[in-house]
Amino acid sequence: MSSTLEETLDLEKNKAEWVLNPPEPPCMLHQLLGTIKGNLLHGRTRKKISYLRNQPLHKLVITMLLGLFPILGSFRNYNVQKFKYDFMAGLTLASLSIPQSMGYATLAQLSPEYGLYSSIVPPLIYALLASSKEIVIGSITVDSLLLSSMIRKLKDPVHDSNGYTQLVLTATFLVGVFQVAFGLFRFGFLVDYLSDATIVGFLAAVAVGIGLQQLKGLFGIHKFTNKADLISVMKAVSSSLSHQSEWHPYNFVLGLLFLSFILFTQYLGRRNKKLFWLSSAAPLISVIVSSLIAYRVNVRHLKMEDYDVEVLGPIKGGSLNPWSFKQIHIDGDFVGPLIKTGLTVAVISTTMGISVARTFASLRGHNLDTNKEMVSLGLMNIVGSFCSCYVATGSLSRTAVNYNAGSETMVSSIVMALTVLMSLKFLTGLLYFTPKAVLAAIILSAISGLIDLKKAYYILKVDKIDFLACVGAFFGVLFASAEMGLVVGVTISFTKIILMSIQPGIAIVGKFPGSDEFGDIEQYPVAVEIPGLLILSIKSSWLCFANASLVRERIERRVTSEEVEDNKGESTFKFVILDISSLMSIDTAGIASLEELNKKLTSQGVKLAVAKPRWHVIHKLRLANFVEKIGGRVFLSVGEAAELCIIGAKMAAV
Amino acid sequence: MSSTLEETLDLEKNKAEWVLNPPEPPCMLHQLLGTIKGNLLHGRTRKKISYLRNQPLHKLVITMLLGLFPILGSFRNYNVQKFKYDFMAGLTLASLSIPQSMGYATLAQLSPEYGLYSSIVPPLIYALLASSKEIVIGSITVDSLLLSSMIRKLKDPVHDSNGYTQLVLTATFLVGVFQVAFGLFRFGFLVDYLSDATIVGFLAAVAVGIGLQQLKGLFGIHKFTNKADLISVMKAVSSSLSHQSEWHPYNFVLGLLFLSFILFTQYLGRRNKKLFWLSSAAPLISVIVSSLIAYRVNVRHLKMEDYDVEVLGPIKGGSLNPWSFKQIHIDGDFVGPLIKTGLTVAVISTTMGISVARTFASLRGHNLDTNKEMVSLGLMNIVGSFCSCYVATGSLSRTAVNYNAGSETMVSSIVMALTVLMSLKFLTGLLYFTPKAVLAAIILSAISGLIDLKKAYYILKVDKIDFLACVGAFFGVLFASAEMGLVVGVTISFTKIILMSIQPGIAIVGKFPGSDEFGDIEQYPVAVEIPGLLILSIKSSWLCFANASLVRERIERRVTSEEVEDNKGESTFKFVILDISSLMSIDTAGIASLEELNKKLTSQGVKLAVAKPRWHVIHKLRLANFVEKIGGRVFLSVGEAAELCIIGAKMAAV
Repeated sequence: MSSTLEETLDLEKNKAEWVLNPPEPPCMLHQLLGTIKGNLLHGRTRKKISYLRNQPLHKLVITMLLGLFPILGSFRNYNVQKFKYDFMAGLTLASLSIPQSMGYATLAQLSPEYGLYSSIVPPLIYALLASSKEIVIGSITVDSLLLSSMIRKLKDPVHDSNGYTQLVLTATFLVGVFQVAFGLFRFGFLVDYLSDATIVGFLAAVAVGIGLQQLKGLFGIHKFTNKADLISVMKAVSSSLSHQSEWHPYNFVLGLLFLSFILFTQYLGRRNKKLFWLSSAAPLISVIVSSLIAYRVNVRHLKMEDYDVEVLGPIKGGSLNPWSFKQIHIDGDFVGPLIKTGLTVAVISTTMGISVARTFASLRGHNLDTNKEMVSLGLMNIVGSFCSCYVATGSLSRTAVNYNAGSETMVSSIVMALTVLMSLKFLTGLLYFTPKAVLAAIILSAISGLIDLKKAYYILKVDKIDFLACVGAFFGVLFASAEMGLVVGVTISFTKIILMSIQPGIAIVGKFPGSDEFGDIEQYPVAVEIPGLLILSIKSSWLCFANASLVRERIERRVTSEEVEDNKGESTFKFVILDISSLMSIDTAGIASLEELNKKLTSQGVKLAVAKPRWHVIHKLRLANFVEKIGGRVFLSVGEAAELCIIGAKMAAV
Repeated sequence: MSSTLEETLDLEKNKAEWVLNPPEPPCMLHQLLGTIKGNLLHGRTRKKISYLRNQPLHKLVITMLLGLFPILGSFRNYNVQKFKYDFMAGLTLASLSIPQSMGYATLAQLSPEYGLYSSIVPPLIYALLASSKEIVIGSITVDSLLLSSMIRKLKDPVHDSNGYTQLVLTATFLVGVFQVAFGLFRFGFLVDYLSDATIVGFLAAVAVGIGLQQLKGLFGIHKFTNKADLISVMKAVSSSLSHQSEWHPYNFVLGLLFLSFILFTQYLGRRNKKLFWLSSAAPLISVIVSSLIAYRVNVRHLKMEDYDVEVLGPIKGGSLNPWSFKQIHIDGDFVGPLIKTGLTVAVISTTMGISVARTFASLRGHNLDTNKEMVSLGLMNIVGSFCSCYVATGSLSRTAVNYNAGSETMVSSIVMALTVLMSLKFLTGLLYFTPKAVLAAIILSAISGLIDLKKAYYILKVDKIDFLACVGAFFGVLFASAEMGLVVGVTISFTKIILMSIQPGIAIVGKFPGSDEFGDIEQYPVAVEIPGLLILSIKSSWLCFANASLVRERIERRVTSEEVEDNKGESTFKFVILDISSLMSIDTAGIASLEELNKKLTSQGVKLAVAKPRWHVIHKLRLANFVEKIGGRVFLSVGEAAELCIIGAKMAAV
């Protein structure tokens, strides 16, 4: 018996060595810097460069071309059949894009032709640069609303339409610059810092904001508030409705009619995949039919101001995208606000684009280089801003149509862009009588996709605090501003991480029957406490200045209360084992509180043992000489600690 | 063999139940609110109230009196012997307090008598209210510098001395109000939010600031800059020194002489505990001796302006603390800055006072109710501000002297206060010739205690990022302002917690020889990988929006690289076991990334298993139906998971 005891002790001494003498862990600061560096300089890029050095020149040129223009790669096995699919998909896309992009441009308070411009140049450039095979580029509702709500504060779009457009183009340029910078510095992970919950709340609020804005078009109201918040818009609508002269019911009837039509075709498209073409053609059909109706209704008036149905009126057409390089001015009083706008829109636009790209990449089962996508999006917006285009990104609705239409390569995007170009050159005259109410209906039909109630409910079910971030972002956008909404959401998300990481929790640990494993007795009611020992686990992942004294107090209180209970029975325990496996790290205050705990326990005749320290934690405990202070009682596992403490107690009793 | 296999499987099924069906964990939001509520309403208080309800009236009165004035409790066994100790300690304290508090008052840019006032009322009130037995109250260097540096910006202390004093008294009142509020709302834990590292850096910078300010007194310079930063002070000193007329070397010689004397007695006191009285009497001795010298040197001049040695001049004395209730004005333009000053000084002052109280409470081995101490400090400052006292708190140097002098109760503080009162009434005339250089020397001798190089080195050794917070706080104070220094320190400390909690790390896990335990093979080089299995552990404590996709990518990369290596050999692994014991929590993005990982692994023919989920994590995984998605492969421990996976692989092979 005694020899086995000795053998056990020898083995345990061996194990103690393993715990107490680990190799030097990597310095946390170096680790952090390493993570950042690893993000900036990707391992694969370095490997590629060293691989390319040993290649002949013509191969090098081909590899470089393929790297720069991945679309070339898809022409390797290209054939007529594939082109047919791409061509049909492109035409379908164009029929969706023309009315949609005109609508979104009016949402951004630009003239409708800027929407068409933005459906030509950016998709073409992206088609050349991007590695993706299905993403379709275009302006999106969120960006349009963000731009108008932020730039409207700097210049009035109604009275100084040229100045406003200049600022929008400048902001677009800045968005592109930020996106390229994100990509080059490999900040791809930045889009991850918007938590799901924040995005869900943000988009829902944006959808509500867009919906409110469309009331103007839907009712055909002339005078409308410039503000975007709920109360001002509701006031403006109700005051306009009470003055019959300011609007005409025709607008509302037309808008509602075509909204119902588009929503019905969307419903059909979801029910029956074969009918998806109907839902993508519905906007164009609505525009054509409603324009004919508007022509019939309005033709009896001579002046546009007297029209019963509000229409778009003259659209500048007949030419390519005008050159707008000279309209970009970054100097002046607006530098600060413009940079803020650029950064906000860049973050949101990139997040939306990347999330669309990710969705379809995982549907097709290929990988996505987030950083490369960011550079492509950025270059596209920079060039776009030189050609009268405003911010564009991956559009969810168009990409879905493209995917459903069976497109094979980015050629479908090129077909779409060229079709839009043709219609801009020859058909803008026909758009004169397009009712504004129908454009509002097209926008309204798109925003339902932004409100994700199912996801919101899922978040509520899984995590109440995340839901708080969601609600915070929602109300932040609705009652303050888009940036404020993002800030609220991100702040709640990170505060949650801090609070949870430092919350001072301890749990009593028991042993599973018929096993050497141990577990929290609240989580595992089958686990039973070992008599004569008090095993506690620290639940927080940090023992630091912010929670060290609270954790110590809780442990002390627990020890005291357990002792009192035990006094009624037979024996009090002689050992407290602290399972510190949850601790990621410990700072000087944490070590000090453990030392104080040890002092206090020692004065009560109780010995402290520590089990399962992590690498950094044991390293720091050793640096602070804590291991000697508790007599080397640091163990590999709770089981070992319990065993040795029981032996120790028996030996002491003998 | 087959029957044992079945038995094992049955047992394992049982264990799986334990993991998969834990009781509902407490909602995290409720847990957080519970922690806050627990802090606000202390359990002991509630117990006490219900206990008191059943007591007779006279007992109730006694308990209440004892609760309100804990000093009464110490009179139970009070006797002549104890009073003798207290009396001697009180006299020693007074001899230290008189020169020190005059010096600190000049540091706060008040006339010296305000320092004396602050050594009378606050200690008396604190003696009545506090539960501590040894803390001695007085003004301290840090508070004095903070007040002068923040209020100097509002009113010039030289040209509008009365207005400046009014603002200081108002700020003192606000400090008291904040401290009472902290205590009543049980925000005692708030002082923990200043990490050790921040405090060390902050105090060192304050010491440097104070040191620079004292150059004025030490050289006896008339014209001096009002700014506190390094560059302006050095400029002012050098320009003064080059104009001989502006200062007289006598000042410098006197100052340096007595600084050496005080430092030498401090050194003696540390070497030999019996000589501590010398170090506490040294400042008073210096004042008396230097005043005599200054009298001899200056007496040949008639006007004070011509004196060779700069002296204090007339001090208002002969009366009690003047009533200053009417000088407190919170309305006006200064509300915002005053509240900011009050809050900053309250946080710092409380932190310093509580840390002194904690140090001596642990030396004497009794507990400290932080919240109650805060209320006492606050009440003391509120009443103090009505009696011409400025901010006071627990003074480290005086408390140490009191402790060494063998004081038994708070009576020593009362003796000190009364002695100061007497000297204020009868001896202020004698202080006319006290050289300013000697007061500067007394302040300089105190600041060395604020610079804790040993602790700074310890922090550097234990944690580089904490050291960054320390350095940040230091330079923040030195080159910007005290508040900025605190903000920098706190921000770095919390950013560290976030970054470390979400840093995307994974480790390979191996088995210890001759044991069922598993561990990180980098931390434990003895651990060996089990062939046919890849066991990975997630190192971060969160799998959430901010790191989920990075962690997933790292796991996928690791799986791919391991597979390639294995292909050279004989068999690739069929199972990946993920040890998620480090995860405190998981959010929807984290769950989504695990689902994606599972999909990817399944497509490669590899099965994913999860081991050691914590309570909240398994709960969320079940809510999200993740457990079904990985075929129920969730295990109690890595060992179980490994065992079952090996059995599974064998069965699949058969």
